[in-house]
Amino acid sequence: MFNITVLHNGKTDSIVLDKKNRISEILSQNEIFVMQPCGGHGKCGKCRVKASGMLSVPSEAERKLLSEEDFRNSIRLACETYITGDAIISAVGETGTVMTDGRLVNQVKFAPEVKVHCIKIPKASLEDQRSDSERLLDPFSGIASVSYNAIIHLPSEIKKASGSLFVVTYRDKIVSVSAEKRRILSAAIDIGTTTIAAYLIDLENGNTIKTTSCLNPQGIYGADVVSRIDASVKYGVHELRKCVLTACETLVKEMLEEVGAKNDDLYLLRLVGNTVMMHLALGISPENIASSPFIPAFTETIEIPAEKLGLCFCNADVITGPCISGYIGADTTAAVTACGMNKTQGLSLLLDIGTNGEIVLGSKDGMVCCSAAAGPAFEGAHIRCGSGAISGAVSGFSADKQGNIMLKTIDDKEPLSICGSGLVDCVAFFLDNGIIDETGYFAEEDDQPFKERLFEFEDNMAFRVSDDGKVFITQKDIREVQLAKAAIAAGIEVLLKKANKNLNDIETVYLAGGFGNYIDTHNACRIGLIPASLEKKCVSVGNAAGIGAKACLIDNELMRQCREITKQIDYIELSSDSMFSDLFIENIGFE
Amino acid sequence: MFNITVLHNGKTDSIVLDKKNRISEILSQNEIFVMQPCGGHGKCGKCRVKASGMLSVPSEAERKLLSEEDFRNSIRLACETYITGDAIISAVGETGTVMTDGRLVNQVKFAPEVKVHCIKIPKASLEDQRSDSERLLDPFSGIASVSYNAIIHLPSEIKKASGSLFVVTYRDKIVSVSAEKRRILSAAIDIGTTTIAAYLIDLENGNTIKTTSCLNPQGIYGADVVSRIDASVKYGVHELRKCVLTACETLVKEMLEEVGAKNDDLYLLRLVGNTVMMHLALGISPENIASSPFIPAFTETIEIPAEKLGLCFCNADVITGPCISGYIGADTTAAVTACGMNKTQGLSLLLDIGTNGEIVLGSKDGMVCCSAAAGPAFEGAHIRCGSGAISGAVSGFSADKQGNIMLKTIDDKEPLSICGSGLVDCVAFFLDNGIIDETGYFAEEDDQPFKERLFEFEDNMAFRVSDDGKVFITQKDIREVQLAKAAIAAGIEVLLKKANKNLNDIETVYLAGGFGNYIDTHNACRIGLIPASLEKKCVSVGNAAGIGAKACLIDNELMRQCREITKQIDYIELSSDSMFSDLFIENIGFE
Repeated sequence: MFNITVLHNGKTDSIVLDKKNRISEILSQNEIFVMQPCGGHGKCGKCRVKASGMLSVPSEAERKLLSEEDFRNSIRLACETYITGDAIISAVGETGTVMTDGRLVNQVKFAPEVKVHCIKIPKASLEDQRSDSERLLDPFSGIASVSYNAIIHLPSEIKKASGSLFVVTYRDKIVSVSAEKRRILSAAIDIGTTTIAAYLIDLENGNTIKTTSCLNPQGIYGADVVSRIDASVKYGVHELRKCVLTACETLVKEMLEEVGAKNDDLYLLRLVGNTVMMHLALGISPENIASSPFIPAFTETIEIPAEKLGLCFCNADVITGPCISGYIGADTTAAVTACGMNKTQGLSLLLDIGTNGEIVLGSKDGMVCCSAAAGPAFEGAHIRCGSGAISGAVSGFSADKQGNIMLKTIDDKEPLSICGSGLVDCVAFFLDNGIIDETGYFAEEDDQPFKERLFEFEDNMAFRVSDDGKVFITQKDIREVQLAKAAIAAGIEVLLKKANKNLNDIETVYLAGGFGNYIDTHNACRIGLIPASLEKKCVSVGNAAGIGAKACLIDNELMRQCREITKQIDYIELSSDSMFSDLFIENIGFE
Repeated sequence: MFNITVLHNGKTDSIVLDKKNRISEILSQNEIFVMQPCGGHGKCGKCRVKASGMLSVPSEAERKLLSEEDFRNSIRLACETYITGDAIISAVGETGTVMTDGRLVNQVKFAPEVKVHCIKIPKASLEDQRSDSERLLDPFSGIASVSYNAIIHLPSEIKKASGSLFVVTYRDKIVSVSAEKRRILSAAIDIGTTTIAAYLIDLENGNTIKTTSCLNPQGIYGADVVSRIDASVKYGVHELRKCVLTACETLVKEMLEEVGAKNDDLYLLRLVGNTVMMHLALGISPENIASSPFIPAFTETIEIPAEKLGLCFCNADVITGPCISGYIGADTTAAVTACGMNKTQGLSLLLDIGTNGEIVLGSKDGMVCCSAAAGPAFEGAHIRCGSGAISGAVSGFSADKQGNIMLKTIDDKEPLSICGSGLVDCVAFFLDNGIIDETGYFAEEDDQPFKERLFEFEDNMAFRVSDDGKVFITQKDIREVQLAKAAIAAGIEVLLKKANKNLNDIETVYLAGGFGNYIDTHNACRIGLIPASLEKKCVSVGNAAGIGAKACLIDNELMRQCREITKQIDYIELSSDSMFSDLFIENIGFE
């Protein structure tokens, strides 16, 4: 028997093990999730934990991916290190902020599908022997039936009621009845590949009364959707469903508790996310999305009782979707709804550069969209010192006139990693200062400024971002950025061509997601991620998917429009588009 | 530790007990149900079992309700006897036949709501990237969506399919998809207060491929609906739900197994029964039906997934109802549908005399109905030697010209008890032979025929039905018959008055239920249960409720009509009807 002590989020857990095991397994069995962007294969070096005690000797992968200093500081990789006796583990970093905020461009009326009514029902008598259910429907018009869940409580609630009953309707159905006034709440959850953002909404006034977030615990299976699909084949789709829904349940229950509400006060749970996340949340195999022709099992809105998914803590209905294709999901339809792109006369462009890069171009006359396989460069997965927008991530990089480097880090912490916006700033800075050339190579000229920050790393050059050298950018990182930005830029051009429009026609560019929010638009244009002529037209809309999902709960007309969008939007598959390959190559360098 | 051996249905079970307990509890904990018409209060003497070994001494109730011969034969009452050490128990009788057969008067078209289709779906390609779900809907018109249960299996079934897919639709939804041809089945269950009849239907051709039945295990809580309501208050409605649904599940699973079908081949489960049975099956409190103004929680059709009710063995949907009032249930609406009363020009009368007595009068121009609290006289509960139509029950009684008594028993067994039709025959025989007078009293005249069969019993007279005296009819039994027949007869008269019709207007009398099937119509008219002028108009329709429930599964138009009936029928509450009390008193004697 080994005794393991685990420190995480300021808590201490004791675990007893009966045989040696990998740290990643021990932690995930105890519902502590360490992100493993490479899926736990010892390739990315991101699953860093602090571990001491009886441990396996460092593996080859660890010796490659960790520095001497890391070993001195007891840093190990969770996917490579085995516990062989008593030990202490503490999770490192990754507790950062998730973008939940955003800007709702579209107009929202307060007209939810779930409504509360205070009514008196006719008293039963020998002259009026109608059932409780029939008498309950009496004061309503347009309400056709009483749900089973409501009928169950009907006799006792009518008995308890002194005069009036509080009745909750959903569409044309009575879904709940109670003698006492209760809250009516709904939750919107944006399940991102990397992060989950959750919102609790008071349906009596449409207010967002609580917001919370966490990392998507499926991160232990890899950073991108393809590794999640692989994991769903290997471990079963229900493993991945349980993994993400347990996190959703925890978020929702915490929010309910914090506002002093009961689980049964929740009526609707709207889930949005990319198409693979929707499949996994519902326990439906996304296997065929992974390979050409990339076919999802479903794209439509699905509405089922939460308990059917194993979410037995509440009586709510779950609504997912709608998605558009295997790589354009419900997060995008929600974001389009949030921006109201489907209603405006002028042409607008939506860029949601998260772990996937979704691009939508259009107006009320129709839309086209595509998914540029940007790769998770901007969320840090493929970047040596990269990370999401966590505490201590370098989010801004510049120099003053004297040439002094100025770093911005999230929460003003000591620099620990670099996130997407920091990366864009750095690459733009490298270009402006001739540190890299137009092909993306680190220039090796003697008179080069900031030469002192360059050093050799794995047979190539790298640039020290933080003074202490902990955060740096490698040649390979620059290549990743080039691939990602070329894909996005080429995607935009393809859509313009398909729509028979040109850059000048675009009136507004909506930048969605955390990256879109923190990015310096000038620098994004400088590196060619966004066409330069659009610089002044950019508007950050934050977590437009989450904001759109919320809006649909508050305004049933927006929910209707969100479903309608799937018919107004044409999906362009870039992988089979010859125009795209040409444009991708054209955009790979820097001008 | 006590070792108990239980013999029942030809099987032997061993039970280990750790403390003394009542036989009825031991049996019901092991899912062996002994009917307790009085609810286990030691009042009716019906829960007879054979028991030997370490037992409690006979209680006062047992000494009163069991004979010396019973004790010699080791007969005890399950509700009164405690096991105090090792013992052997065997269940007695009550394995008889349940009426499942019947006559469908209405016409049935083969047009079920569940249909199977064999289709080819368009192949996915980069040119046709529609989701599996969308491509599946492609060949259909009028089918709007794919259910969650079907989507889950869609990717794998499409992969397995060599060419065609077998698709099952229910209304406008695809509910199942498979690569191999599978059966499509549905089941109708008539949950009577005393018995449960179940039918398995092949939805490819409308054939009934299996029929089965059992006693309603809720019988341990009492014979009538009021004792069931009391039990639901005392033990919780979910106890009674589980009790009856476990029996339904067993019946359906047995039928599926016997025809070599899988549980998932079942798509619909149609439950009918009286209003209290519907409440209990759904776990909805029927409490308010027990007392004036007799208000049910619901009467409408309820449709929910079987698993929601704890029937997790299949993916079927359960459809209950519709009922009309607290005492006119889904069995009656199904019976009216089976008889097609709602479609005929001529006036007809439906009599369903089971544990409750439901009466419907009408034609396509409208119907009236009432529930005559006949009490369970004709199902044997309140009759000293009474029983349902079990093996060995006296079902016919007459004498030949020489005055020799001729008994008919069910299955031609030794007479053990007397059922409703036997009781009617006896009372008619008593009247014809002057054994009872017009007020229902046993005549005590010296020249009376069959005087040798009369004996004194509990301060009154009784009549020996079987030669061995095991089966007899008491003065109190005659009173029970008078109360029951007066209620039915008065009910018929009230309905005629409400409908402004008279006896001559009635063209057909449908006699439903086992009692209606076995009854001698002439004798029923003789004792005044049915007005004499209707004798030649009587038609037995058997288990019209079960037959009607089946018909609705086969013909969706009948299901629609069945729902419609609730709007075409007026319910008359007899308990508050002064006309009824007058007529009841008028009918209490024999003419």
